[in-house]
Amino acid sequence: MTSHTELYVAVQQFYAQQMHKLDRRELKAYADTFTEDGVFGHLNGPEPTRTRAAILEFLYEYHKRFETDPMQRRHHFSMIDVRQRDDGSISSNLYSSVFITRPGRKSELAASCTLEDILVWEEGQLLTKSRLIQIDADL
Amino acid sequence: MTSHTELYVAVQQFYAQQMHKLDRRELKAYADTFTEDGVFGHLNGPEPTRTRAAILEFLYEYHKRFETDPMQRRHHFSMIDVRQRDDGSISSNLYSSVFITRPGRKSELAASCTLEDILVWEEGQLLTKSRLIQIDADL
Amino acid sequence: MTSHTELYVAVQQFYAQQMHKLDRRELKAYADTFTEDGVFGHLNGPEPTRTRAAILEFLYEYHKRFETDPMQRRHHFSMIDVRQRDDGSISSNLYSSVFITRPGRKSELAASCTLEDILVWEEGQLLTKSRLIQIDADL
Repeated sequence: MTSHTELYVAVQQFYAQQMHKLDRRELKAYADTFTEDGVFGHLNGPEPTRTRAAILEFLYEYHKRFETDPMQRRHHFSMIDVRQRDDGSISSNLYSSVFITRPGRKSELAASCTLEDILVWEEGQLLTKSRLIQIDADL
Repeated sequence: MTSHTELYVAVQQFYAQQMHKLDRRELKAYADTFTEDGVFGHLNGPEPTRTRAAILEFLYEYHKRFETDPMQRRHHFSMIDVRQRDDGSISSNLYSSVFITRPGRKSELAASCTLEDILVWEEGQLLTKSRLIQIDADL
Repeated sequence: MTSHTELYVAVQQFYAQQMHKLDRRELKAYADTFTEDGVFGHLNGPEPTRTRAAILEFLYEYHKRFETDPMQRRHHFSMIDVRQRDDGSISSNLYSSVFITRPGRKSELAASCTLEDILVWEEGQLLTKSRLIQIDADL
């Protein structure tokens, strides 16, 4: 049984590795941090994307915009509220800030968001089973 | 006896829940994260507010401004220096950045601050006994 | 033997104290968080600075700019990926955001960076053996 202390740190370490992958545009490696039946979407948005394969397809499509508008994104997660759930999964509610830097330009705050994650252990590894994003500008 | 590792994570978890409450404007729930005799104020400012009841009153007053200027605030705490003190209380010195988003507008960095907190355990729960804020723009 | 949980928290606590020193311009105290043979530099930049004494000299030189352009800097580290290495040292890859505030002015995001740190234990204390910075605007 993992203590809350161990779990909290495992979640922080998982998020660091997960978001480094996304920000390096290792889209396949990022998609692999979701479960096979993983869910990704926006609160108050269209139906979320379901399954790891569909998430990867969505990511390829989404990242096309960076071909004509090159930028380095950095996702910063903070204020992580981690709770063990009775079914063995983990709820993780947190803030995400996205900083972007276009080549030779000043860095800027691109978005302030909240995330509602459900994480699960699979073979000793944390994976994201569900991630629902709320962008503050949409509130 | 709590190890420094357990304490550090407990403080992070406490701050996440505490500031989510403030940013959701659950002012009563936020005030309840202070001790009955809790202190809240600004370094180099007027006399700090004392007692949980007075802090709640201050919060209601302060939040009136958001009725005419609606915005979503997000308090991000980071670089937390947690130290056990001899009297059993905990000193926690940290950075706080406040991001705000007005409806449909770009998110912005509203303030960069330092916080000097004294935390205490009451019935197995962390509470804020004292919070003194220094806003960088006032330096 | 330190568990990953204990190590991760020790690194967070170390970074908080280390960067508070830099942001308070306690340059000698900050330089002392590096090993005697410590390395500090920029990826894709000139040769890094080597030895604690040379890092301190570099810091004194660099901080002269703040005499004519006073500002409060705040280094925020996040998304820390901490890994124990076989030789007993620790690799720590993370994001650093630098917020600055000039007196009476609005705070701003000055830089978004990645850091590649190698940390080591010396007499029960973490120290930075090597820090290589990549500024996103230089990508």
